[in-house]
Amino acid sequence: MPTDRPQPAFVLVRPQMGENIGAAARAMWNFGLDRMRIVAPRDGWPNPNAVAMASGAGRLLDEAVLCADVPAALEEYHYVLATTARARGLTKPIVSPERAMQIAAEKIAGGEKVAVLFGPERAGLENDDISRANAIINVPVNPEFASLNLAQCVLLTAYEWQRAQGEVTPERVDMAKTDWAEQIEIEKLSVHYEDRLGEAGFFFPEAKAEGMKINLRNMWSRMPLTRADVQMLHGVMRQMVRWKNR
Amino acid sequence: MPTDRPQPAFVLVRPQMGENIGAAARAMWNFGLDRMRIVAPRDGWPNPNAVAMASGAGRLLDEAVLCADVPAALEEYHYVLATTARARGLTKPIVSPERAMQIAAEKIAGGEKVAVLFGPERAGLENDDISRANAIINVPVNPEFASLNLAQCVLLTAYEWQRAQGEVTPERVDMAKTDWAEQIEIEKLSVHYEDRLGEAGFFFPEAKAEGMKINLRNMWSRMPLTRADVQMLHGVMRQMVRWKNR
Repeated sequence: MPTDRPQPAFVLVRPQMGENIGAAARAMWNFGLDRMRIVAPRDGWPNPNAVAMASGAGRLLDEAVLCADVPAALEEYHYVLATTARARGLTKPIVSPERAMQIAAEKIAGGEKVAVLFGPERAGLENDDISRANAIINVPVNPEFASLNLAQCVLLTAYEWQRAQGEVTPERVDMAKTDWAEQIEIEKLSVHYEDRLGEAGFFFPEAKAEGMKINLRNMWSRMPLTRADVQMLHGVMRQMVRWKNR
Repeated sequence: MPTDRPQPAFVLVRPQMGENIGAAARAMWNFGLDRMRIVAPRDGWPNPNAVAMASGAGRLLDEAVLCADVPAALEEYHYVLATTARARGLTKPIVSPERAMQIAAEKIAGGEKVAVLFGPERAGLENDDISRANAIINVPVNPEFASLNLAQCVLLTAYEWQRAQGEVTPERVDMAKTDWAEQIEIEKLSVHYEDRLGEAGFFFPEAKAEGMKINLRNMWSRMPLTRADVQMLHGVMRQMVRWKNR
């Protein structure tokens, strides 16, 4: 059974080595975190190497939620942080691990669900993954030598989560009778726009289409959208299509 | 060549696995630290497994200072921190990694030399090692699951060192024309007292002698002694002996 303590989920995106998944579980549990999600692990799931490495934290692996892709992993989350070694030229707030876990603690205290994305060992998260995050966590490593591995990145983030406990006041926002949109609502909005705009020939030329789509998704996820906002934005697009079809 | 940047030395005490020494070097260099000391490594020195693991941080191993024991490793240091998983019932300040590295930064900015002790993988530092430290660093891990390994402990401490940079004002103490004692001076004072007290039959009964000696060393290292203090304390003991011999 996971602990009752409200906490962020740590989402390992396309992890490669089972050992690293196990080490990440240990790193999390060292600081009392036990909600892991695993997106498309390279070597399948369950993974005996992960189990062997996790030892005392094996429960986290048993309870880990296996997901086919990043959107599926994030469906019910409200606020998403992405860890990267490099800034990516995406217009998104970049915060320290300390600040990130303060924000996470505030949002969780306010009733939101928070997820943190960790990329695969070699390449890290892709821009497509990062485009789904509200903010980027950047660990201030030595620019001459940035070699944090997956479990170390998880460890530092979990450590900052632990540090952020006990000094938290819930983030206060007057929500005027609506809630923050969940990630699946943002995703559906994004897909809605992408589909209609695709049909409309917006993503042109072809060579630039993928980059344009990422920029678009990036914009949606960067915005603090309420459910009411999302409905309105859907309405905008539907209206445009209706107008065209008229 | 080590970097010119003033920084604490990280002292690995009786490390066992070469891989862990290499991983500790990487963890240090991720946060710009490159002064390593190694006390009595189990498998000798140099260690090919350490070199293989260190990869881009191999320079730290080439430049590491090999020491026969903890007192030798600490000779010219003024302020010593010891990392432990458990409090040990030694009367010594226990600080978080964050506070420890703030203290280190203040002392270094004030011209002192600071060392941080890390224990062997299995058992951690012994009380005899810890007795030589001015303060204890305790990482606030999950009490149900404290499984930080050597390199992870080094990583968190190095990370906090990095975080403590840029917001430091030197510790200000009016030194009244004297300096803080170096560790070798404290050690000599401790030995002086221990020898004389031993001759005096102080460490009795035999079964308790070692514990009494540790408590004594612990007291000296806990005190912020100046060179002038040390000279005076030597004088006190010499005087007692002189008095006895008179």
